[in-house]
Amino acid sequence: MSEFGKLGVAVRNVARADAGAVDRLARAGVATVHEAQGRVGLMKPYLRPVWPGAAVAGSAVTVLAQPGDNWMLHVAAELLQPGDVCVVAVTTDNDDGMFGDLLATSYRARGCRALVIDAGVRDARVLAEMKFPVWSKAIHAKGTVKATVGSVNVPVVCAGMLVHPGDVVVADDDGVVVVARERASAVADAAEAREKNEEGKRARLAAGELGIDLYGMREPLAKAGLKYVD
Amino acid sequence: MSEFGKLGVAVRNVARADAGAVDRLARAGVATVHEAQGRVGLMKPYLRPVWPGAAVAGSAVTVLAQPGDNWMLHVAAELLQPGDVCVVAVTTDNDDGMFGDLLATSYRARGCRALVIDAGVRDARVLAEMKFPVWSKAIHAKGTVKATVGSVNVPVVCAGMLVHPGDVVVADDDGVVVVARERASAVADAAEAREKNEEGKRARLAAGELGIDLYGMREPLAKAGLKYVD
Amino acid sequence: MSEFGKLGVAVRNVARADAGAVDRLARAGVATVHEAQGRVGLMKPYLRPVWPGAAVAGSAVTVLAQPGDNWMLHVAAELLQPGDVCVVAVTTDNDDGMFGDLLATSYRARGCRALVIDAGVRDARVLAEMKFPVWSKAIHAKGTVKATVGSVNVPVVCAGMLVHPGDVVVADDDGVVVVARERASAVADAAEAREKNEEGKRARLAAGELGIDLYGMREPLAKAGLKYVD
Amino acid sequence: MSEFGKLGVAVRNVARADAGAVDRLARAGVATVHEAQGRVGLMKPYLRPVWPGAAVAGSAVTVLAQPGDNWMLHVAAELLQPGDVCVVAVTTDNDDGMFGDLLATSYRARGCRALVIDAGVRDARVLAEMKFPVWSKAIHAKGTVKATVGSVNVPVVCAGMLVHPGDVVVADDDGVVVVARERASAVADAAEAREKNEEGKRARLAAGELGIDLYGMREPLAKAGLKYVD
Amino acid sequence: MSEFGKLGVAVRNVARADAGAVDRLARAGVATVHEAQGRVGLMKPYLRPVWPGAAVAGSAVTVLAQPGDNWMLHVAAELLQPGDVCVVAVTTDNDDGMFGDLLATSYRARGCRALVIDAGVRDARVLAEMKFPVWSKAIHAKGTVKATVGSVNVPVVCAGMLVHPGDVVVADDDGVVVVARERASAVADAAEAREKNEEGKRARLAAGELGIDLYGMREPLAKAGLKYVD
Amino acid sequence: MSEFGKLGVAVRNVARADAGAVDRLARAGVATVHEAQGRVGLMKPYLRPVWPGAAVAGSAVTVLAQPGDNWMLHVAAELLQPGDVCVVAVTTDNDDGMFGDLLATSYRARGCRALVIDAGVRDARVLAEMKFPVWSKAIHAKGTVKATVGSVNVPVVCAGMLVHPGDVVVADDDGVVVVARERASAVADAAEAREKNEEGKRARLAAGELGIDLYGMREPLAKAGLKYVD
Repeated sequence: MSEFGKLGVAVRNVARADAGAVDRLARAGVATVHEAQGRVGLMKPYLRPVWPGAAVAGSAVTVLAQPGDNWMLHVAAELLQPGDVCVVAVTTDNDDGMFGDLLATSYRARGCRALVIDAGVRDARVLAEMKFPVWSKAIHAKGTVKATVGSVNVPVVCAGMLVHPGDVVVADDDGVVVVARERASAVADAAEAREKNEEGKRARLAAGELGIDLYGMREPLAKAGLKYVD
Repeated sequence: MSEFGKLGVAVRNVARADAGAVDRLARAGVATVHEAQGRVGLMKPYLRPVWPGAAVAGSAVTVLAQPGDNWMLHVAAELLQPGDVCVVAVTTDNDDGMFGDLLATSYRARGCRALVIDAGVRDARVLAEMKFPVWSKAIHAKGTVKATVGSVNVPVVCAGMLVHPGDVVVADDDGVVVVARERASAVADAAEAREKNEEGKRARLAAGELGIDLYGMREPLAKAGLKYVD
Repeated sequence: MSEFGKLGVAVRNVARADAGAVDRLARAGVATVHEAQGRVGLMKPYLRPVWPGAAVAGSAVTVLAQPGDNWMLHVAAELLQPGDVCVVAVTTDNDDGMFGDLLATSYRARGCRALVIDAGVRDARVLAEMKFPVWSKAIHAKGTVKATVGSVNVPVVCAGMLVHPGDVVVADDDGVVVVARERASAVADAAEAREKNEEGKRARLAAGELGIDLYGMREPLAKAGLKYVD
Repeated sequence: MSEFGKLGVAVRNVARADAGAVDRLARAGVATVHEAQGRVGLMKPYLRPVWPGAAVAGSAVTVLAQPGDNWMLHVAAELLQPGDVCVVAVTTDNDDGMFGDLLATSYRARGCRALVIDAGVRDARVLAEMKFPVWSKAIHAKGTVKATVGSVNVPVVCAGMLVHPGDVVVADDDGVVVVARERASAVADAAEAREKNEEGKRARLAAGELGIDLYGMREPLAKAGLKYVD
Repeated sequence: MSEFGKLGVAVRNVARADAGAVDRLARAGVATVHEAQGRVGLMKPYLRPVWPGAAVAGSAVTVLAQPGDNWMLHVAAELLQPGDVCVVAVTTDNDDGMFGDLLATSYRARGCRALVIDAGVRDARVLAEMKFPVWSKAIHAKGTVKATVGSVNVPVVCAGMLVHPGDVVVADDDGVVVVARERASAVADAAEAREKNEEGKRARLAAGELGIDLYGMREPLAKAGLKYVD
Repeated sequence: MSEFGKLGVAVRNVARADAGAVDRLARAGVATVHEAQGRVGLMKPYLRPVWPGAAVAGSAVTVLAQPGDNWMLHVAAELLQPGDVCVVAVTTDNDDGMFGDLLATSYRARGCRALVIDAGVRDARVLAEMKFPVWSKAIHAKGTVKATVGSVNVPVVCAGMLVHPGDVVVADDDGVVVVARERASAVADAAEAREKNEEGKRARLAAGELGIDLYGMREPLAKAGLKYVD
């Protein structure tokens, strides 16, 4: 396996996650998956969807790019397979628009499901019209050069979270969460169990029952020192 | 009255504002109410609506939460009455997703009109589908623990503004403004007078009349030193 | 010509750009215009549209305002001509809501096409309903006084970019770019050539051809040191 | 008492805190005072000392200023008494340099001990040479006008914290904390008790004893679910 | 003269400002120069000195660099003359450490007085030991490549301010201000007059006289609506 | 080995890096080490030293803390060995003061060389007097609770960089860089070779030789399109 953050390498063969587990994780959504795997794996909330409503999951093809340079996003296109999500980290903070409608056209043709990028994108309106899902740090018309190599499919940190090639990336309006490839099925199971459990609660809360009764919080609150006054 | 920012207290009985005044303030909107009460009361503009188009007003039930901990939001549910707006401050800067679809279901069942929170929320898409109005600092899937007590219905500072329990909170796409409970009717009167006054101006401006003539600015501009050149 | 950033001056007569070139630049869009004129002229990406989907270009009427003071925006109204875009810089960082529905009504009546402002605006919902295009740094209900003079139609720096009165301002969902008045036609030509060139590429990429082949990147990548591994 | 955030008022007579309690709070320092009064009262940490090493406390004279306008800081000079700390809030976010060496000279002549300002200051080098303590949000050479009134000695929110005129303001390299005037002596007592308690702990920790033993944390950690592995 | 922001050009011959005026501006300092030239010319306050206490002025040699690339700073070295200040703008936001002890050694050997950079620098400790003055946006160990051309001695916007090659750049602990080359002597005169005027005021304020009397503010304050209450 | 970011685990036995290599890396400094290991490993530049001039290296003991909760920093004390550097990550953005003079006393007694923390610290003045080196995101008097478990010695992301327990952490005024434990000696060799190489260059640059000659840049610049004009 290539080393973390190494520059100048493009790794061709990467194991992907189980396709069924990936789709189950997409249905569960980011907030539920995060809870279900023990409250780990979230990217920072400055990553926002370019258009609202998308909800996807896929196996990560990782890119490590240089600031102001999107050369490696072109290299990644060849290594993308149907069902992948491209995850782009940069060697330093940078908001340039590294991805636009031409790359989106190419990525879609390769079967790529979405882009998660710790930088900027452009052609925002076309991306929305194409319904190509993108989570980015910024929207910025500034294009990039193709002058310095980074890497494809090495482990990277994107928006504060470690991503290995082949990890499952789940993204929706609440943000982006990463699930280790080997744990995909187990986390999908836990997420579905969690959802089932919440169903009953939603109905009881809608009927006016209080959470502090439903969850048995009155005694712990008193022990923790909360005092009610009039 | 409980003290400002005190921890470990939940105050049950809080006087609410006049319901008629509250609704008149909602119709006037944030920008007009802010002007009408002498340019005071605005929260900072980093609070943004989770979905656009909501416009509400209600009596504040205040919450003081600890970072990464939404226990007090569950305590507040019991103290919410129809017509209230829940206002959440945190003892330190924190973007965790303290509120999601289950709490929204519970708050709505209690008659709560909206949430204003100086922190993050999650389940953004469901909140939009439910049409439950939320103004927050962030959207973040990261959930919270229930381990440390804060308070309910003590005075707090939320997004830079002091809020007493029972104050009127008005919120729309322009932000959030607070009106002292005792002044609600007077401010509603002033806001309506201001709106009536603007009506005529809008028509004259639409017809091409200039504001510098309409407002009599030419002489003050000259006195203040503005020079026209060609 | 008035000096850069000079205070206390309103310049009446400003040469505008060629109307045909302005409209061609609007059609090309910000990202393409930026590339076509040699990757210069972009404002910083913190300027965002108040409502999505607007795409305009026009000749700049520039305003230099004081913090918390929108007096000069009223002065500018008289100097606006059909086809203009009003560009507002402030002498220091400030997010106050300097522009709302009344000024938008007045500006539209003068034929102004859009506002680009390195500060805040208010009445966001009405601006969207009016379909008056605005790019701003913030949405903020806080209104302003009319106490201190700035200038109209002097060169200013808005969101990090130099703007001369009469320069062409192009704005869409990707941001805002400035084209020097004298270069408007030449840049429009270059933008259209660039678009035509991209058409063929889009079709080939959609058919699955790789960008690294289309752009002949394999040899440069190898020379730059990229190594493929399995 | 004047209302919170009201504009256009200068209140002459304000009760000050007990001088002995103020000096005891200064000696205890911000972190200890914050703990001693129940973890409330801290301003946000973006307020930083202009020069390191100052540690002061005093009774608050509050100022509410307009953005880009330091008129009220001149009004406040007349109302300052020996032992006071001037606390400046602004009606909106603003970094202009509202205070420099001339005002510092004047404030010192009035017996003012320090400035705490939710905005910028200038003449940073002279302030350091004069040893006049200042906590500010920014250092910025941009001066201000004197055109719009604010207030002196009304309750304000400064850097996220509510301050009433006459409250005790304690500031050092760790930040700024506010103590309600009536609680000054009680909090000073609690702070001194806390310091005495820490003395013994410091010696034991320096000798190599572990905090998890000293504070009896091993059992609570196990109950909370921490597992040791090799 | 080369165009604003043009890429790929290095201009050899640039007129410098009058050496005597430059030195008088350095002595006056940033805050005074800013006022003396009509409150224009300041860079944004996020530029901070790498070490405190430096106060310089010089003629600007401007650099336009690409993100993550310091090639043009090497090109600039050849074009620096004794008495110059190097001013670096970047085509997009970037904090990489573009300048360190080797470049500082080279710049000093060329007679360069200081660096003002809208990006990061490294070797901060050595820069302080060398007493080479630097104002920067960040300190960051991340080095840069030398792959893409920018320009030297074209007009640029640095930290929000327009700078022409040969303009006077004045910098001290309060920030950085730019004076147009042709106005250097006139602004130096105005700055010295302003300083002389302030001398007498400082003594009177130190003696306890109030600014509101010294500046005759009592009547304007009353007219503007300020009310004194007890 | 424990999993990345897992909660509720404290790992006792962690392999440390070679002591000689650690000390050689400290002498080389952050900027040189970053270059020497191929431009990888840097934490983000928002981490700043609490007091200037410290320069250290050590083996990482990693901590994963919850927001507003420093319990795990007490757990870590027991697992620290002489020569270690404690590295603290938080499960979400948080600036609370998690570390102060008591913990510093304890850590020093355990032989810990420094703290690197992606959060706040307090008692800044005492930390400087003790000469205990700390790199932090903020200085903040706000203390923390001890209520929720995190982990010790699991891999974490701190300030954007992956850190495994036992990795070498090098920190000085330029920031913080991480070197994989197994590569410590090789990187130390490369860093020393790089420093030796720079020595000769520094002398030639100090003598006035130009970098563009020394590094042979004239031809590449011409090829890249740079044009000199007069």
